[in-house]
Amino acid sequence: MSSLHQRIRADIQDRILSGAWPPGHRVPAEHELMAEYGCSRMTVNKALAPLAEAGLIVRLRRAGSFVARPRIHSAVLDIPDIQAEVTARGETYGYELLSRAARAAKADEARALDLPPGGRVLAMTCLHRAAGQPFALEERLISLSAAPEAEAVDFTMTAPGGWLLTHVPWTEAEHRISAVSAGKAARLLSLEPEAACLVLERLTWRGEVRITHVRMTFPGEAYDLTARFSPRSG
Amino acid sequence: MSSLHQRIRADIQDRILSGAWPPGHRVPAEHELMAEYGCSRMTVNKALAPLAEAGLIVRLRRAGSFVARPRIHSAVLDIPDIQAEVTARGETYGYELLSRAARAAKADEARALDLPPGGRVLAMTCLHRAAGQPFALEERLISLSAAPEAEAVDFTMTAPGGWLLTHVPWTEAEHRISAVSAGKAARLLSLEPEAACLVLERLTWRGEVRITHVRMTFPGEAYDLTARFSPRSG
Repeated sequence: MSSLHQRIRADIQDRILSGAWPPGHRVPAEHELMAEYGCSRMTVNKALAPLAEAGLIVRLRRAGSFVARPRIHSAVLDIPDIQAEVTARGETYGYELLSRAARAAKADEARALDLPPGGRVLAMTCLHRAAGQPFALEERLISLSAAPEAEAVDFTMTAPGGWLLTHVPWTEAEHRISAVSAGKAARLLSLEPEAACLVLERLTWRGEVRITHVRMTFPGEAYDLTARFSPRSG
Repeated sequence: MSSLHQRIRADIQDRILSGAWPPGHRVPAEHELMAEYGCSRMTVNKALAPLAEAGLIVRLRRAGSFVARPRIHSAVLDIPDIQAEVTARGETYGYELLSRAARAAKADEARALDLPPGGRVLAMTCLHRAAGQPFALEERLISLSAAPEAEAVDFTMTAPGGWLLTHVPWTEAEHRISAVSAGKAARLLSLEPEAACLVLERLTWRGEVRITHVRMTFPGEAYDLTARFSPRSG
């Protein structure tokens, strides 16, 4: 004899594993499951929590639960082209410029980009979407002494990463990868504040000159990074 | 005029930034702060939450709050030697074998290690500590057809990673890096279940033969990974 929450869980799992509910399919809302099974919200939650823990569904704030899609994999040793990666998966890519300011660098920004006090930067915040859902929050700084032409670019239609790759040559980059709670990025990424996110920070050089620093925050279940290597490489 | 929780927060922040409370220093427990400031648990929480969000303190389940220590950085393109990294930071390294079983591989394990049904593996779970606190949970599988000598090794004193590096040659490895909530690993890592963790999965080959698969789970605030690269590398 299984309890009701185990039965609800098994029903949903069967539909996912059989393919009846494909990746991205919306799981019935909590109130719909409560009505269908004549049970409490707590029972529904006990059914959904292990499915989320197993990575079969993704629970988004407000928007409800969805059948998980496979993660997008990026190579660690490359500057990822997010639009290309999303499109390659057959999903619609979306881009939105949330803020833009050409201004003097703050102290920590000047340190990061090795600028003198008061050095000018272009600071932008952008949201990338995959299949309509938030996929990455981009916090971008471009040194306007290293890439002055950036100030005249209309970044409302063109994402800074793609523009930089095609317009500003680079010779070296450094990635720093960490795991954080969504925190302040939660609202923009439609996540709970404690949701685990993968943060990819990248600093890019041309020779000795620092061109740009970017911090990309991805929902943990949407993205991972891979690298192949041999002894003594890297 | 600042409110009480802002004053508590500022007091703690001053002690951390002045160095009076060094990294690893234990922040007074909630009930001690409640007594010191004559305030409620909610006020203490409002003071501590932004300090944790800013990365100045780390809040551990049961154990209380501690002044944050800098993260350990590992190169992405290397098999990290955890003991060496912890020791290099001047901290005591601790290791504990939690479980060990030589047995037939489960279906997913056989797939991961490219073993025939019933192929034998050595499955281990280990905990690594830095300065007494949990630093990494290791879930290790060794193929006993690729490395039969592993079955006779006493892994209660020797961590599998260090033993493999010195006893079993390898030619290629693949890393997969992702961010997850601690979930089932929370208890062993002294974290809340929703705490963000960095997961480093590695598969290691000798020629065409798969030797070992390991899943390392690090508390997000304790560890990150870095990689430097140039265009077309990797």
